[in-house]
Amino acid sequence: MSVRSQAEIPDIVIGRLPLYLRALRRLQQEEKSVTSSHELGRRLDISSAQIRKDLSHFGGFGKQGTGYQIEFLIDKLQDVLQVNQEWLVAVIGAGNLGIAISHYRGFQDRGFRIAHLFDISPKKIGQRIGEFVVQPVSSMREIICAEGIKIAMLAVPAEDAQTVADQLIEAGVRAILNYAPININVPEDVQIQYIDPVTHLQHMTFYLDA
Amino acid sequence: MSVRSQAEIPDIVIGRLPLYLRALRRLQQEEKSVTSSHELGRRLDISSAQIRKDLSHFGGFGKQGTGYQIEFLIDKLQDVLQVNQEWLVAVIGAGNLGIAISHYRGFQDRGFRIAHLFDISPKKIGQRIGEFVVQPVSSMREIICAEGIKIAMLAVPAEDAQTVADQLIEAGVRAILNYAPININVPEDVQIQYIDPVTHLQHMTFYLDA
Repeated sequence: MSVRSQAEIPDIVIGRLPLYLRALRRLQQEEKSVTSSHELGRRLDISSAQIRKDLSHFGGFGKQGTGYQIEFLIDKLQDVLQVNQEWLVAVIGAGNLGIAISHYRGFQDRGFRIAHLFDISPKKIGQRIGEFVVQPVSSMREIICAEGIKIAMLAVPAEDAQTVADQLIEAGVRAILNYAPININVPEDVQIQYIDPVTHLQHMTFYLDA
Repeated sequence: MSVRSQAEIPDIVIGRLPLYLRALRRLQQEEKSVTSSHELGRRLDISSAQIRKDLSHFGGFGKQGTGYQIEFLIDKLQDVLQVNQEWLVAVIGAGNLGIAISHYRGFQDRGFRIAHLFDISPKKIGQRIGEFVVQPVSSMREIICAEGIKIAMLAVPAEDAQTVADQLIEAGVRAILNYAPININVPEDVQIQYIDPVTHLQHMTFYLDA
């Protein structure tokens, strides 16, 4: 584990920081320069007390009564999350989802740049997709090692996800965002997060009047 | 709010149920018929005590020492989450992401069927995408009302998300899965969930050695 995680800040707090950062950047786009935990709270549907408490883990970001300087707080959060740099990302799987991810423009100004798109299918390898040429999974390990890529997004079928994840980790990847609808086992020093729209939909249907 | 939410089960517990359901169905695919909180816990990286506690909110699903009957537990969780039926879903936005969502096969056997794909662009309206013909946003309200659609997935640009969400809610939608990287305000009786890959990536970079 890195030094950063030893500060014992609850992971759930870390998980909210990207939301704060996103909301702050939105406020900045609206040409605001100062905000408050109340304004952030309203926008994010999080209590202002929670926001103040979360941010207090990282030192004093604002003074009582004067609010937060938006630009300053953005800088601080980007430092804390280490996205004041550009991380290279490999995408594995050039199906519809991998293609959509590769075309998505929301990564680059938030700390990430997709560097490679890999697939296993001979039909896809060599195809041009946006600015990428699909590369064979067989060359994935070498490329990821050589370029020191630490982050991968997995858009492969569920049955291939664990195998591909194992290969990625062997190649040096330390953070995987998995879109395949299956849980993956990773070593303790590897981060894993999941995106599965169905789990979100099923969460919401609990509350619906059927 | 529906009767179901008055049971005061913490929302974070409800949020884990779809993960349990997904893992149980995977076990079923592996032709297992019985599991334990320990086995589920290992697969999900959640403590077995947490799993037992979560499931205890909904009555007795297993006996001490004998484990959980997988099929029975799947049925129960599907009942609780109300996905023992098929919910129609509208997708708004026929860009790369909307197209990927429309092609995704993981919805149908988990309680959802995409019924319509809407877009505002004259270039896209009328196009055939997989099994869908892209329909104009101008007819969205009427169609959603007429068919009683309660769930929508938003794959529109951030700047359009609030407006489209407002229209959806007016038409009767009560659950929105928002892929646009922006927070949306919805009335209390409307569920909202978010998918933003960047927030997941930024969560993970906190822990990486830069």
